[in-house]
Amino acid sequence: MKARVLIRPKAGILDPQGIAVERALPALGFTGVSQVHIGRLVELEVEDSSQLEPICRTLLANPLIEDYEIQEP
Amino acid sequence: MKARVLIRPKAGILDPQGIAVERALPALGFTGVSQVHIGRLVELEVEDSSQLEPICRTLLANPLIEDYEIQEP
Repeated sequence: MKARVLIRPKAGILDPQGIAVERALPALGFTGVSQVHIGRLVELEVEDSSQLEPICRTLLANPLIEDYEIQEP
Repeated sequence: MKARVLIRPKAGILDPQGIAVERALPALGFTGVSQVHIGRLVELEVEDSSQLEPICRTLLANPLIEDYEIQEP
């Protein structure tokens, strides 16, 4: 089965990529954009979906500074 | 309004992060995982959602090698 994992910086953890995008937007003529957060998207095909949780914890996300959300269709 | 942008390497474009994850998994004891693709997740708050498309093209994604998908709730 296909699965998707969304990985985001935890609330309160500095998100330098998000800050960089937010600061760049007005210079490009885009106003009214805020709360930009940048994370990672992982899409994979897995035989046993019970493996997803440990795969996220041990390899895909850094649980100290990142939250992950597993989406199975 | 809140919006989410999923950015993926285009089909056929080398995805070295995905390959690295796919190769690391068996060594960690996870089998049966394939087709790993790694992209970026951007979440933002935007006043005018018609800006999303040009923001993706000019700043968030590299349209030469990446596809983007805009999700508005």
